[in-house]
Amino acid sequence: MKPLKVALLGCGVVGSQVIRLMHEQAADLAARIGAPLELAGVAVRRLGRKRDVEVDPALLTTDAEALVTRDDVDIVIEVIGGIEPARSLIVAALSKGKSVVTANKALLAEDGATLHEAARQGNGDLYFEASVAGAIPLLRPLRESLAGDRVKRVLGIVNGTTNYILDKMDTTGASFTDALEEAQTLGYAEADPTADVEGFDAAAKAAILAGLAFHSRVTAADVHREGITEITATDVASAKAMGYVIKLLAICARSEDGRSFGVRVHPAMIPRSHPLAGVREAYNAVFVEAESAGQLMFYGKGAGGAPTASAVLGDLVAVARNRLAGTHGPEESTYADLAAHPMGDTVTRCHVALDVADKPGVLARVAELFAKHDVSIQTVRQEGHGDDAQLVIVTHRATDAALSATMEGLRELDIVRAVASVMRVEGDD
Amino acid sequence: MKPLKVALLGCGVVGSQVIRLMHEQAADLAARIGAPLELAGVAVRRLGRKRDVEVDPALLTTDAEALVTRDDVDIVIEVIGGIEPARSLIVAALSKGKSVVTANKALLAEDGATLHEAARQGNGDLYFEASVAGAIPLLRPLRESLAGDRVKRVLGIVNGTTNYILDKMDTTGASFTDALEEAQTLGYAEADPTADVEGFDAAAKAAILAGLAFHSRVTAADVHREGITEITATDVASAKAMGYVIKLLAICARSEDGRSFGVRVHPAMIPRSHPLAGVREAYNAVFVEAESAGQLMFYGKGAGGAPTASAVLGDLVAVARNRLAGTHGPEESTYADLAAHPMGDTVTRCHVALDVADKPGVLARVAELFAKHDVSIQTVRQEGHGDDAQLVIVTHRATDAALSATMEGLRELDIVRAVASVMRVEGDD
Repeated sequence: MKPLKVALLGCGVVGSQVIRLMHEQAADLAARIGAPLELAGVAVRRLGRKRDVEVDPALLTTDAEALVTRDDVDIVIEVIGGIEPARSLIVAALSKGKSVVTANKALLAEDGATLHEAARQGNGDLYFEASVAGAIPLLRPLRESLAGDRVKRVLGIVNGTTNYILDKMDTTGASFTDALEEAQTLGYAEADPTADVEGFDAAAKAAILAGLAFHSRVTAADVHREGITEITATDVASAKAMGYVIKLLAICARSEDGRSFGVRVHPAMIPRSHPLAGVREAYNAVFVEAESAGQLMFYGKGAGGAPTASAVLGDLVAVARNRLAGTHGPEESTYADLAAHPMGDTVTRCHVALDVADKPGVLARVAELFAKHDVSIQTVRQEGHGDDAQLVIVTHRATDAALSATMEGLRELDIVRAVASVMRVEGDD
Repeated sequence: MKPLKVALLGCGVVGSQVIRLMHEQAADLAARIGAPLELAGVAVRRLGRKRDVEVDPALLTTDAEALVTRDDVDIVIEVIGGIEPARSLIVAALSKGKSVVTANKALLAEDGATLHEAARQGNGDLYFEASVAGAIPLLRPLRESLAGDRVKRVLGIVNGTTNYILDKMDTTGASFTDALEEAQTLGYAEADPTADVEGFDAAAKAAILAGLAFHSRVTAADVHREGITEITATDVASAKAMGYVIKLLAICARSEDGRSFGVRVHPAMIPRSHPLAGVREAYNAVFVEAESAGQLMFYGKGAGGAPTASAVLGDLVAVARNRLAGTHGPEESTYADLAAHPMGDTVTRCHVALDVADKPGVLARVAELFAKHDVSIQTVRQEGHGDDAQLVIVTHRATDAALSATMEGLRELDIVRAVASVMRVEGDD
């Protein structure tokens, strides 16, 4: 049987594992596909560099464009990341009728439309399971297993770095800075941690998930994004005392009327009894709520060379089978064409801690302000007294706009010395 | 666009939900498939019966065989269950080139080979996501997402009835009989609960999972099966006191040398810290350990009309897309052709409680017996004294044969008044 030729773009943490597995599992892969795979070339930035895997030097090239458009190449695997040159290379490959497997969440969230259109025109496959939640099979279940159901909500921990940091803060009482430093020492966070701690990475994944869940086109610009840098050890301790844990969540939720959806990434308090609360260290987990299936959860390693390579190879087997069968997998599905609504329209709940003057009438004035904005209060608790008096309030569900207006109003109240913390509450409805 | 015609076999709990969803989501399904679906007929046992869904009486028929072989039918959905007439009907449909979606775990585990062969010859699809763990996307991830990885072990709670019973026993201290009665009252257990409580249902699912995980042919006869009827409130309480919980597990594990696998269903103690320990009520969850992906978990509703129908409809969309594209999905993969090894070769651990005479030298004689069978002891604890003296022993890992021989030997020791309980321990390696 004629081998299928595979071009690999990138030979870093993921790429080297892809090469190792293609080599070690060659016989299994050939049996599962129905034809052997052959590595046609590996595009790298520098030829002489030491790598984690042995590669025939004759396969290495710095001319990625020539590689992806070579006539004998059937499938291109892109694991270089970033917008350019990844986009141009993927489009070039797809335009020449190749199939592409990519782990590039940033590119898919920024300009997935261009890639999908190129796949459609070239009649090839564009598969990207590895782009969200690493090894966890999540996109294929959303795209295929739930194709006969209506997804209502996706709620997930999709960034391992921030989960590691928040888990350390929760278990050891560490500050954000100390927990980040530990994550950097252990290799869970990069020297410049912005993409992770400011939620950009999770936002790209949220955009991809929302697009699949709601059969609509979603980009990173549609995602409301807040990071975890402002979270203090006090916030974490206070959540803990109330039976909650703080997690950075990616949330994609269909609106009540089904005509739009919200997509957002922000830290939130979730009850300790929620299955996502038990997701420790750098693990990922995603809750999916569908109309008929009910609640589903997917859990596993969200990053790392071997887990990501496992997802890439699963896609590689699928697109290889499709090529042999002369067909392709499901195309991008955007028929529902729903739009993301603004964050203000999102319905959520809030936990607020207020430093207040300890005198009669304070609670009445605070309660009046909530009522004015139509935000109803679920619980209120007074802690300390005198200059240390604090009101801790948890609201019922309201629009984010009403909640924000309430917080604004609280900051202006003379009896409120400071709004010590505001945190959304999720996962208990 | 010409509609794809669907014949439905069975209009019970699942079938009626399939009809409802095909109707309610007709527009979405058509958009996702690329052509509308049309219900061509529904085979039922009795025409006049009241049903949970409105069906055009003209569609109902008692002649299932005529329905599945009708020239205009493209896809057959089988949700009648049992071996016959389901097998003959599915084979008849596949032989005529139809694609089949089935939820029939018993049939797949008994004689999957016949069905797969018929699918291969007819060049149609045989999809069966709903046969294991209801709505949880599990078979597609195993069959496709992990196609580039090597599955080492599958460890799961795949029977909701027994999980409900064991969860009640754990949380309320109820006896097996009382918990079963409650499960029956609530509709979680059938009047004749044998298939569930004796592990037959879980064993069928274990056979299907092992076949997919190890790319080999596995039948229910390969599965070592023990039920939960012998489990006492004392067993449950004793496990609880040690930080364990008892679950009925389906375990498929590749042997160390990779040349065979074990597949078994039996109750086992798992640590409370294990993610499966938190699976409550009638929920299902399955752990998959793969070489590169690491540990993955899938969680959700394992049964019920709507969740099972969700899985059926996901498969329906897939096989419909395949028909439109003139192709079919991955065939049965048995190339690895591994065999199940006997239970005796399985490596596990045991928790044993012995009623012993409270006199010097007892522990030495017991320890000597374990040593004779090459079973090493991890912990031993003496509880009570005098006539109530009990030794509680947890072993290290050993073959099931060695463990069984040790238990046999213990029963014959004069200083052992009774082997009060024996339970395997899983999930802590």
